[in-house]
Amino acid sequence: MESVTAVGRTVVPAREARAARLAAGQRVSVVDLEGGQVGDVFAFAAEDVTEHLSAAHTRAATNRLFPAMGEPFVTDRRRPILTLVSDTSPGWHDMLIAACDPARYAGLGATASHPSCADNLRRALAAMGLSVPFTPQPLNVFMRIPVGEDGRLSWLPAVSRSGDAITFEAAMDCVLVVSACPQDLVGINGGEPTSLAIDVSAPN
Amino acid sequence: MESVTAVGRTVVPAREARAARLAAGQRVSVVDLEGGQVGDVFAFAAEDVTEHLSAAHTRAATNRLFPAMGEPFVTDRRRPILTLVSDTSPGWHDMLIAACDPARYAGLGATASHPSCADNLRRALAAMGLSVPFTPQPLNVFMRIPVGEDGRLSWLPAVSRSGDAITFEAAMDCVLVVSACPQDLVGINGGEPTSLAIDVSAPN
Repeated sequence: MESVTAVGRTVVPAREARAARLAAGQRVSVVDLEGGQVGDVFAFAAEDVTEHLSAAHTRAATNRLFPAMGEPFVTDRRRPILTLVSDTSPGWHDMLIAACDPARYAGLGATASHPSCADNLRRALAAMGLSVPFTPQPLNVFMRIPVGEDGRLSWLPAVSRSGDAITFEAAMDCVLVVSACPQDLVGINGGEPTSLAIDVSAPN
Repeated sequence: MESVTAVGRTVVPAREARAARLAAGQRVSVVDLEGGQVGDVFAFAAEDVTEHLSAAHTRAATNRLFPAMGEPFVTDRRRPILTLVSDTSPGWHDMLIAACDPARYAGLGATASHPSCADNLRRALAAMGLSVPFTPQPLNVFMRIPVGEDGRLSWLPAVSRSGDAITFEAAMDCVLVVSACPQDLVGINGGEPTSLAIDVSAPN
């Protein structure tokens, strides 16, 4: 595998995804360029991409629905892969909801050609010569899914502002994929999906 | 695949798992025989066991942390696989936490020989000539993980009583696996894992 990581900004166009390689210790920000946009973030171990960031294992590690500042996201093998180091957004992020996929859009009445975060993930990995036989549950940055009475979940429009960023430090060499969620039938993106950016800092 | 389903009771010994085949429409109860015991429940489509009950897709379908009575559990392909039809327990069940596995017990200081729900799942499927290349996030019946302030999760001892049962109807032909969780280092089973039962009713 290529070990060089592109430092700098990669724009993730609305409804698409992009991937970035990160070395352990490197920092990456996911930036909401226009505001109100959800990003589905996936992370895979560089040495074996079947090992992936897992929401269910992360909850068991941190005893929270979403890690607090300084806490790790762990893989399905319970190894830290990212650490949450900074967040300039209002702080809403989700780790409860599956990535949108063709079956989700079929259920919402869309045509088979509707883009999805699951398809975006596959395409972004393929551009790096990679593939995985499943779609891990993503961490959905800027996604606002409050938990109410009796465990009821609400799907609310993202309130992140233009320029808001959530920043992670890589705890291992990994591949990060960010999908600018194309959901336009449920209001999480305010009805109009927009672009994101992946800002990779120079290695320490 | 064998299509005959064994009707009646299968005891799941403490720290072990057992599997059962269900035809669409058939009902199955998971029974806490002695009380205070968590069961990790997995379900797979009979026609292709890579399709499995998915917690993240189920939350997106029901807009709840755990389905309410009459609501479905869906697969990673968003098809209903089980429906919640009855529950005589106090009602605590979890769909947030990953199955325990060797890495979990290593982190808790146990030896490599400690049994786990992930290993139990593999063994129960193998006894049916089946395997899957991953451990789906289970639905953890009788497991008490309340969500508190700021999304904090607490791991509390199960309060199910001897004879309490949660009952599902199969929405498709499927394979159900129930692991009597061997967790004895975190207090969810009151420190002493005990047995469960799988009660399969006659087909309609």
